[in-house]
Amino acid sequence: MLNIAALEQLVHELSRLPGIGSKTAQRLAYYILRSPAEYSERLSESLLRVQAEVHSCPKCFNYTDKDQCKYCEDPHRNDESLCVIEEPSDIMRIESSGAFRGRYHVLHGVISPLEGISPQHLKIKELIQKIENGQNGEGPAIREVILALDADLEGDTTVLYLAKQLSGKGIRLSRIAHGIPIGSDIDYIDDRTMGRALENRVEL
Amino acid sequence: MLNIAALEQLVHELSRLPGIGSKTAQRLAYYILRSPAEYSERLSESLLRVQAEVHSCPKCFNYTDKDQCKYCEDPHRNDESLCVIEEPSDIMRIESSGAFRGRYHVLHGVISPLEGISPQHLKIKELIQKIENGQNGEGPAIREVILALDADLEGDTTVLYLAKQLSGKGIRLSRIAHGIPIGSDIDYIDDRTMGRALENRVEL
Repeated sequence: MLNIAALEQLVHELSRLPGIGSKTAQRLAYYILRSPAEYSERLSESLLRVQAEVHSCPKCFNYTDKDQCKYCEDPHRNDESLCVIEEPSDIMRIESSGAFRGRYHVLHGVISPLEGISPQHLKIKELIQKIENGQNGEGPAIREVILALDADLEGDTTVLYLAKQLSGKGIRLSRIAHGIPIGSDIDYIDDRTMGRALENRVEL
Repeated sequence: MLNIAALEQLVHELSRLPGIGSKTAQRLAYYILRSPAEYSERLSESLLRVQAEVHSCPKCFNYTDKDQCKYCEDPHRNDESLCVIEEPSDIMRIESSGAFRGRYHVLHGVISPLEGISPQHLKIKELIQKIENGQNGEGPAIREVILALDADLEGDTTVLYLAKQLSGKGIRLSRIAHGIPIGSDIDYIDDRTMGRALENRVEL
């Protein structure tokens, strides 16, 4: 359609990014063409650099460019508490709340039979090993596991599966609360959130 | 914030793209990290390729990877009619309407005193030369120039400037019509569009 092979290839690659349709990809490609050549070079280089330097932390499977990630490295965090999350990007959300000071474990996905993602595709085996052996193989035993997964079908499935796998291991297992967001108006809350908020009501 | 230099660099470069804020850039960067390494390599390569292969058509300033663009190359287009547009991406919009079969001239921007873009930054000198000398230097004289620019402050300024520059050169100068879009409901049209539609009413 554009009749320029290089431009079509760039549009094609850009449109594979999430939330970028072919129209947006075209707009971005034209922007890149209009920009000085250094911008393409810098973006191109940073794409290669991120793949070369960033890898999984061997302990928690967060991304890192060192031997282990900053949360595993920090000696001041609580080894007895473990927060299980879907993706590395979820860590920042939890960290910025300031309400958790334990360690993390990234599953790198959730169980989704529709997309063919079963427990063996996720870091669940490693999670069970970690709970059985303590955080560092020889560290103190984990006493509490908090599942911070989404409240959708896949998240719920994963929570049920993990609850079954982790039962009888002598840990306190919990899931983060789903309910009315702070500051929002009850008038505008959807039925499922309201249902969950009532179900999980907190005694005063 | 992410504490991984390579990832931060990628987020920074991505967030310079139009319509991509730092949140979206972060989401894209995490997606790129999750993807197989080949994706980064292909995207990286296509960025370099587009800068290496694509350049301005020497005649109309559309993008091309050949000696001249497909619209300048086509011998079946009308040399006497010239459509002036802001960006190469506007050509596709006009082409897909099927209502124009002449040649194009891309200004590569519009006059914007606020952003410091004055006539000498645009391909206006080349437009005037083209009109004075015919499309190919020796080709038939241009008889009609259609300005297909936006109806905003910058577009209007550019139209006024071009009208002044091109007056007395014996060409028919027009501007594409702004009015009610086909299929839309008069109830929902904004005041300025309605004002323009009334002003430019067409006699029956």
